[in-house]
Amino acid sequence: MKFTVKKEVLVDAFAKIGKVLSNKTTIPVLRGVKVEARADCILLTASDASESIIHRIPADPGKAVIELEGEAVFKREALEVASKLSGDITYELEEDTLHVTQAKTKLDFSTMPATDFPKIPTTNSKPISLTGQQFSDLIARTVYAVSKSEVRPVLTGVNLSFGKELQAVSTDSHRLSKVTIPLETEMEEICITVPGKMLEHALKAFDLSQNVFLTAEQNQIAMVNGNTIYLSRLIDGQYPATDRLIPTDFKHEMTASTEELKDTLTLLATLSKEGVVKMEVDGMFVKFQSRSETSKGEREIAYHEYTGEEGFAISYSTVFLLDALKRVESDSVKLKFVDPMRPFIVEGLDGTDQTQLILPVRTY
Amino acid sequence: MKFTVKKEVLVDAFAKIGKVLSNKTTIPVLRGVKVEARADCILLTASDASESIIHRIPADPGKAVIELEGEAVFKREALEVASKLSGDITYELEEDTLHVTQAKTKLDFSTMPATDFPKIPTTNSKPISLTGQQFSDLIARTVYAVSKSEVRPVLTGVNLSFGKELQAVSTDSHRLSKVTIPLETEMEEICITVPGKMLEHALKAFDLSQNVFLTAEQNQIAMVNGNTIYLSRLIDGQYPATDRLIPTDFKHEMTASTEELKDTLTLLATLSKEGVVKMEVDGMFVKFQSRSETSKGEREIAYHEYTGEEGFAISYSTVFLLDALKRVESDSVKLKFVDPMRPFIVEGLDGTDQTQLILPVRTY
Repeated sequence: MKFTVKKEVLVDAFAKIGKVLSNKTTIPVLRGVKVEARADCILLTASDASESIIHRIPADPGKAVIELEGEAVFKREALEVASKLSGDITYELEEDTLHVTQAKTKLDFSTMPATDFPKIPTTNSKPISLTGQQFSDLIARTVYAVSKSEVRPVLTGVNLSFGKELQAVSTDSHRLSKVTIPLETEMEEICITVPGKMLEHALKAFDLSQNVFLTAEQNQIAMVNGNTIYLSRLIDGQYPATDRLIPTDFKHEMTASTEELKDTLTLLATLSKEGVVKMEVDGMFVKFQSRSETSKGEREIAYHEYTGEEGFAISYSTVFLLDALKRVESDSVKLKFVDPMRPFIVEGLDGTDQTQLILPVRTY
Repeated sequence: MKFTVKKEVLVDAFAKIGKVLSNKTTIPVLRGVKVEARADCILLTASDASESIIHRIPADPGKAVIELEGEAVFKREALEVASKLSGDITYELEEDTLHVTQAKTKLDFSTMPATDFPKIPTTNSKPISLTGQQFSDLIARTVYAVSKSEVRPVLTGVNLSFGKELQAVSTDSHRLSKVTIPLETEMEEICITVPGKMLEHALKAFDLSQNVFLTAEQNQIAMVNGNTIYLSRLIDGQYPATDRLIPTDFKHEMTASTEELKDTLTLLATLSKEGVVKMEVDGMFVKFQSRSETSKGEREIAYHEYTGEEGFAISYSTVFLLDALKRVESDSVKLKFVDPMRPFIVEGLDGTDQTQLILPVRTY
């Protein structure tokens, strides 16, 4: 194996696969990167037991020249070091020693055989195509609400249903977020749960000015973006039916400034560790209150519109409402309530098909 | 006590004293800030057993108005919360409850009596005056070389000698840095050792466009900058005599590009955990080599000038030379050697009166 690559190309490639590369794994070969020099490209693969990323550097006279095909598993340092070099960097494998040279710099690294690296299954299913923006919306607007606890593993993932539309749902059983995107061509119905962390990794590795192609199967999801393929395992288990949780008849509806609500909740969140805020409609204003052992706080803001009972009060997690508000892009936001014991809806006025639901907290 | 302060003034003040404020201390009163409203100013004091900072907010119609004098220890949150508010914020103490109000926001915090707060000793000695730049040079060019180990506590500090000049010395017994600044008026001779960490805190809290006034006594050092006073305890114990360690006759002297040396050492530092580099003069070039269990690296650079034996070789810590080079502001740097076993000098050509010394590593 022998190839020469421009520093910048290698630094970009390493930044992409670096999202998956772990130093923590106890399997030495997975701490490295599988490098395959082919006639027309160099393939870099990083993987752990749960997720893999494959990045393709196409052969291109100005950027990458392949002199001799071959494959091996490189130590991460052998690629990472590109950031400390400049210009054209040559990689040459001699038995199991990798020579990295550039001008008056010569570096040697030990390697491992490519056959030690796990096989990454590829897929033949038909993919669906999303714009980078759609993919980003889908993930960023759901992944925040997955469960942080491993008690019910299936809740640590985002549930994706393919069919006439693509629907993503996340819930930690105290709150829920659902985003729906119409599909141009109807897909075979399939419903999978993808670990939230893996979706965040993919989102970080992707160039969102380019489309994302998703292929979902029974045991993995593949996401293709430009020259990068990201593969993730799925979470086994039945995802709970969430549609029946979402109320449809509301008794109290309030519209207010998204920014003012955010500021108020951010202020009160700094005071109370318990993180519960009581909201109360009070004449022309809505009053927010929180208390801890050594402090209490109160702020009133004017709402834009309110229909419902005067004096309506409800308590909920400050952070949960803040999290939901962060996903609202419109200047105003609508909160829709049934009663102080039932989940309520946080609705942006930005036209996105998104439902955010928060369970209230009982205070005595 | 009652006063009203502009948000920005309070945020600035909190940023300064926040450098000393610790959440870790087990003494509750030290987790708070002593606030004294006087006729002409508000004084904020943060302290732990070792260091204290006092920041003065002068009464000024546009910025701070004092209505009622008084004092108390505030929880840090009571001041920190200013960043989440806007405009004029009013603080009013009613018995031991502090009311913080701004427009439609009302916050209550518990307080502690000011008498619980430790007394901060003040000083009457005559201070010496440094420009902000001189103070910054003095600290930044020495503090990096203090010992990280507590085995010899006196080495974790920077030794300051006042007299005809101000001299700062730091050493961890593997390397040393010494900076000398001439003084306009001769001082009474005094020699103290100040904890490195405290000097870093002071440097961060200070506005370097303003002068720094130093007052050194037997048990503390006071540093005054604008409206901020920083006080630190001293480290007891005899600081080692370092002058005799600094060689004066050199056999091999090399001048090279500071940037090229830095790049080379940064590259080699990424390869070797042991962090030792071997330097060897080789014809028109100087060769740097390092090795670890699984990799080795080599780079040659052209030196600017060299006088000494051909083939001269010496090994030293990559990080120590890098640390020294970071304090050199000139494009070229001079390395002056006696022999492979004796400490060598790293000398900037920027005219600063600084000596940096590094002990070589023996390799077999």
